[in-house]
Amino acid sequence: MNTFGRIFRLTSFGESHGRGIGGVLDGCPAGLSIDLDFIQRELDRRKPGQSEITTQRQESDKVEFLSGIFEGKTLGTPIAFVVWNKGQHTEDYSSLKDVFRPSHADYTYAQKYGIRDYRGGGRSSARETIARVVAGAIAKLYLKHAGIEVNAFVSQVGEITLDTHYSQLDLHKAEENKVRCPDVTTAGKMIRRIEQVAEEHDTVGGVITCVARGVPPGLGEPVFGKLHANLGNAMLGINAVKGFEIGSGFEGARRTGSQNNDIFIATKREIRTKTNYSGGIQGGISNGEDIYFKVAFKPVATLLKKQPTVDKDYNEVEIHPGGRHDPCVVPRAVPIVEAMTALVLADHFLLFKLNKL
Amino acid sequence: MNTFGRIFRLTSFGESHGRGIGGVLDGCPAGLSIDLDFIQRELDRRKPGQSEITTQRQESDKVEFLSGIFEGKTLGTPIAFVVWNKGQHTEDYSSLKDVFRPSHADYTYAQKYGIRDYRGGGRSSARETIARVVAGAIAKLYLKHAGIEVNAFVSQVGEITLDTHYSQLDLHKAEENKVRCPDVTTAGKMIRRIEQVAEEHDTVGGVITCVARGVPPGLGEPVFGKLHANLGNAMLGINAVKGFEIGSGFEGARRTGSQNNDIFIATKREIRTKTNYSGGIQGGISNGEDIYFKVAFKPVATLLKKQPTVDKDYNEVEIHPGGRHDPCVVPRAVPIVEAMTALVLADHFLLFKLNKL
Amino acid sequence: MNTFGRIFRLTSFGESHGRGIGGVLDGCPAGLSIDLDFIQRELDRRKPGQSEITTQRQESDKVEFLSGIFEGKTLGTPIAFVVWNKGQHTEDYSSLKDVFRPSHADYTYAQKYGIRDYRGGGRSSARETIARVVAGAIAKLYLKHAGIEVNAFVSQVGEITLDTHYSQLDLHKAEENKVRCPDVTTAGKMIRRIEQVAEEHDTVGGVITCVARGVPPGLGEPVFGKLHANLGNAMLGINAVKGFEIGSGFEGARRTGSQNNDIFIATKREIRTKTNYSGGIQGGISNGEDIYFKVAFKPVATLLKKQPTVDKDYNEVEIHPGGRHDPCVVPRAVPIVEAMTALVLADHFLLFKLNKL
Amino acid sequence: MNTFGRIFRLTSFGESHGRGIGGVLDGCPAGLSIDLDFIQRELDRRKPGQSEITTQRQESDKVEFLSGIFEGKTLGTPIAFVVWNKGQHTEDYSSLKDVFRPSHADYTYAQKYGIRDYRGGGRSSARETIARVVAGAIAKLYLKHAGIEVNAFVSQVGEITLDTHYSQLDLHKAEENKVRCPDVTTAGKMIRRIEQVAEEHDTVGGVITCVARGVPPGLGEPVFGKLHANLGNAMLGINAVKGFEIGSGFEGARRTGSQNNDIFIATKREIRTKTNYSGGIQGGISNGEDIYFKVAFKPVATLLKKQPTVDKDYNEVEIHPGGRHDPCVVPRAVPIVEAMTALVLADHFLLFKLNKL
Repeated sequence: MNTFGRIFRLTSFGESHGRGIGGVLDGCPAGLSIDLDFIQRELDRRKPGQSEITTQRQESDKVEFLSGIFEGKTLGTPIAFVVWNKGQHTEDYSSLKDVFRPSHADYTYAQKYGIRDYRGGGRSSARETIARVVAGAIAKLYLKHAGIEVNAFVSQVGEITLDTHYSQLDLHKAEENKVRCPDVTTAGKMIRRIEQVAEEHDTVGGVITCVARGVPPGLGEPVFGKLHANLGNAMLGINAVKGFEIGSGFEGARRTGSQNNDIFIATKREIRTKTNYSGGIQGGISNGEDIYFKVAFKPVATLLKKQPTVDKDYNEVEIHPGGRHDPCVVPRAVPIVEAMTALVLADHFLLFKLNKL
Repeated sequence: MNTFGRIFRLTSFGESHGRGIGGVLDGCPAGLSIDLDFIQRELDRRKPGQSEITTQRQESDKVEFLSGIFEGKTLGTPIAFVVWNKGQHTEDYSSLKDVFRPSHADYTYAQKYGIRDYRGGGRSSARETIARVVAGAIAKLYLKHAGIEVNAFVSQVGEITLDTHYSQLDLHKAEENKVRCPDVTTAGKMIRRIEQVAEEHDTVGGVITCVARGVPPGLGEPVFGKLHANLGNAMLGINAVKGFEIGSGFEGARRTGSQNNDIFIATKREIRTKTNYSGGIQGGISNGEDIYFKVAFKPVATLLKKQPTVDKDYNEVEIHPGGRHDPCVVPRAVPIVEAMTALVLADHFLLFKLNKL
Repeated sequence: MNTFGRIFRLTSFGESHGRGIGGVLDGCPAGLSIDLDFIQRELDRRKPGQSEITTQRQESDKVEFLSGIFEGKTLGTPIAFVVWNKGQHTEDYSSLKDVFRPSHADYTYAQKYGIRDYRGGGRSSARETIARVVAGAIAKLYLKHAGIEVNAFVSQVGEITLDTHYSQLDLHKAEENKVRCPDVTTAGKMIRRIEQVAEEHDTVGGVITCVARGVPPGLGEPVFGKLHANLGNAMLGINAVKGFEIGSGFEGARRTGSQNNDIFIATKREIRTKTNYSGGIQGGISNGEDIYFKVAFKPVATLLKKQPTVDKDYNEVEIHPGGRHDPCVVPRAVPIVEAMTALVLADHFLLFKLNKL
Repeated sequence: MNTFGRIFRLTSFGESHGRGIGGVLDGCPAGLSIDLDFIQRELDRRKPGQSEITTQRQESDKVEFLSGIFEGKTLGTPIAFVVWNKGQHTEDYSSLKDVFRPSHADYTYAQKYGIRDYRGGGRSSARETIARVVAGAIAKLYLKHAGIEVNAFVSQVGEITLDTHYSQLDLHKAEENKVRCPDVTTAGKMIRRIEQVAEEHDTVGGVITCVARGVPPGLGEPVFGKLHANLGNAMLGINAVKGFEIGSGFEGARRTGSQNNDIFIATKREIRTKTNYSGGIQGGISNGEDIYFKVAFKPVATLLKKQPTVDKDYNEVEIHPGGRHDPCVVPRAVPIVEAMTALVLADHFLLFKLNKL
């Protein structure tokens, strides 16, 4: 099940240490201008080695398109692309061949398939998200035509939280610092927290908030294709994500209806809501307000210190990975959250054309 | 998009005040014994009027099967069923024809389709979940063969939370009280809280925790069919759900890797984990531990007091619904959460048969 | 796999002698006026007992809609419907319980599922096509808005063939005689041939030709959703169909390219073809010409005379069915061919809206 | 819609003159040994320039796998592959930029998408079938485990037909001559016919017969996933195919039931049929007999002589293609027919595992 979406549909492929990571994007309408530089920039936003708080691995991930684009425009045919794996062959992974790293997917893949590519996580590696970022960048180009913009940012690292409401922030400022938090003071605290866990050879979790603006009312399919359910599915499919909430989310569970209802107001032949605890979606369908949600990431499982574990023959062993790993994944996950959001919205934007006679 | 699942596949139909609510379950293996009493009991668990803290509407929802079952067993052909709508025709809904109730789906359906059945919410009514509970009951019967059991319970009502870890509770006790909380003291507090908001003509949100036991390692499909992503999708598709978290969830975002990693232990030719912050799923695939997750419900949007709103012609109006509504939806949502969980697990259990040569 | 189509999607259910036959049509755009009389008339065109050359069973199949229609229009929500089985309970089928009728699906269902509803063919009964005709009638109503019309007729019964090209015929005349052949002389020969095989307690095969007019250029999806491939799939899914050809079909295999190519001509800002050996589809996409194809039906397998066969315990037995069966299925299959064609075209008409930016 | 299959699922990509042609095969079970030489040999069977009766273009199509295979076995993850386009850039296609070649897909693609890659047919080129042959070869490796073998051969070229029943032929002899007809005398006639049309700068159509042996009873999904309907869909999706018939096919339409029924016989605890007019499929489900069907190909549309046509501005123009083209496509289409058959059977073989409890 490596295909995502119903109409605007990404099929992803590739293992961490195979020939490459790539995908096939089918269902993108014909005639869309493809800005290759924009797509590469999006890819650069997720690449390792961006700053001292991310992994120091240097991967120069360049996307190569194989089909579906002609003279700078989409043909309506499948858009295939690949990012070749390069520096991935230097390490020796044979010591991990039979070992199950804690809180990784080694054990579950072995149980499911009876065989696994143990090098760098194989298919379960976060390198797979390359395919999502490339396809998501095309989705963003498509959504731009419709006036839809998607912005995500880091709103929590460990216990450090950004409490300002997103509407009070300039979201584009998130790109100005290495932790991708749009509030410079909080960003500083987050960076220090990440540096601290890195020094301790530990890792830390975090939360990303995502906002989609300009989504017209009417996107989302009752009853099993609710827009926020599909967004949740998309987010929970990102490596390390363990939680999702939209609008008032878990906080809403504490509230009364009179506190939580969004009262409608009519202004100039347009209907809006006074508050937006719904997070822009009611009954599974967008209502024209900002769509916003939060995504919880667990701490990276790979620690640069000794951990006990077991191997496939039930022996107790100890692992002590070297190499370069992210002490906190959320800064680099921001473009991935945006990409998956864009894929969901592009798919629903197309479905939306089919609602009425 | 009224079909759920890939192999074990429910197509749901019906409006609140149409002829009936029903579904077609396709892909259920042949030869499964169908316990009609069990299915009806599951349906009774979600019906209105069960106790004084749920809506006082009396709906005697009886399921009628139309196909797919022969001499008490499934044929392998589609299982169609319907629950006829009965007491739904007494009220006069014409006053709501052009009005958009706050935090309901009236406005978004109107925007999406240009037409809507305004009686009782039409397709957006929670009556639609009848189809899920019936199909979910069949999924439970199927899973039982594989030794899988699904139990959900109310773990929060407003600010009242049940803090005991689920493993310390006898989950079957949830059915012994009307709020479906397995801890009798907390249940009492929750019931009082619901009675209070009911007196205030208000409503309150809550949280349901769900546990699936006996799931073998290997269920879940990389990369876009991760088991917890599909569970999240299923839960977020239930009316009023705004949040989902699995394992350590949002709390995990605060933690370090050394706090949150689940260390493997090998005992008697079986591999287990010491802790279960992963919630039974690693890399999107079940690892054999208990699967557990939380589902956040917003407060019911229908209040038995006046609320301002607008109509389709941009006029400000006031609504004051009479009738009988739930002050808190979570007690009746417990079987729905279980049903959707069972549908996801049944689907993945079938896919699981296809992993290896 | 009881669901047909990608967007305009029919899920069918029901066994011959269960409670009823029905379906759920999902994805029909909102706001379509539903002419219930038209739908019932379409259903009447396929019903048994229409004339002395079809089966004499009297089945008064009345369709009942359960959802998706409100005040005469589609809501955009699933349209569920059922035709109750009535006179189906009079016969005693117990003698067929363990017997496999020749060229029926008894043996293959038993092999596939290990269980079967042996009464009247169960799920493999042609009664299932009721669901297709109802959904197809809605598809026809939808296509009418787009100026698309679908007409099928009987072009062969046994060795009796109608050799006149369809464009020389008034296709609406097909409904004027009981064999549904638009040429009155050939119709007479066909009727006599059917009467003859009926007297011999035998059956005979036939061919239906179908023509779709008014289909705009651009319908059909490369490469695995070619319009004629989907039409072929639809036709071959009808009971007793064993062959499909479009345009010059098998005859085209005998020809040279210079004989078979359709030369383009440009007239008044419109591009047409001089001939139409392509059958209105080139590269899997409609080109604006008439779409026409032929569908081959094998003779009905049920003979009103003794046939040897075997039972599930490998015993040789003899069957001699009584009852009333069609000596030739093609007259009653005409509305089924039209219905499936309409379903395919409606689905592709919706997909067609998504091609371009 | 560039994805084929439900479980064993090929997504194809690539234009004739883009970077390459390839695909992603998802759903292949883990642990299958991949014989790369076999796959390349299958690809060589479809390549141009094989003999003097096919196109003289020399395309050294070598397949490169990008993912999904590890240490010679499938991982259960997507298998991506590409065949790079090489000699495709020498010709100048600018003269065809605005011209619609007769009976090609130029006009319909332009109508559908408003943009097309006019070089060598772009996406509509038969080069796309490379992806099918590679994926089909993997399907063949999978089916071999189950004892299923698929063999196709040329049974007609223009008016030259092979009338011997397939069961009287040694199908493997088809590979011994360049037209792929297993009867050496008929093969000679066919070759001479192709040489003749080539001299006349014309082309000719033909028919391929395909036989699948060893398919167990029970494959095929009622009612919309009938095995022969899916085979028909697969065949009609191959470039130039205009007809499909299974078993007695169109000939069966001429027959009576008593001539066409397949009488069951029970031998040694196995049930077989005396004749096989059903073509191995009854009620859409395999019955254990040989599956056989015929596929009609129209003559290649590209003629090496002048043809009148029109351009996008409604001007009459003349085309006179140079280059090297197939005078008859059927010899090279044999491996494509086999590949698509193998894909359908592999998909249904997997679904077959889900029928019973």
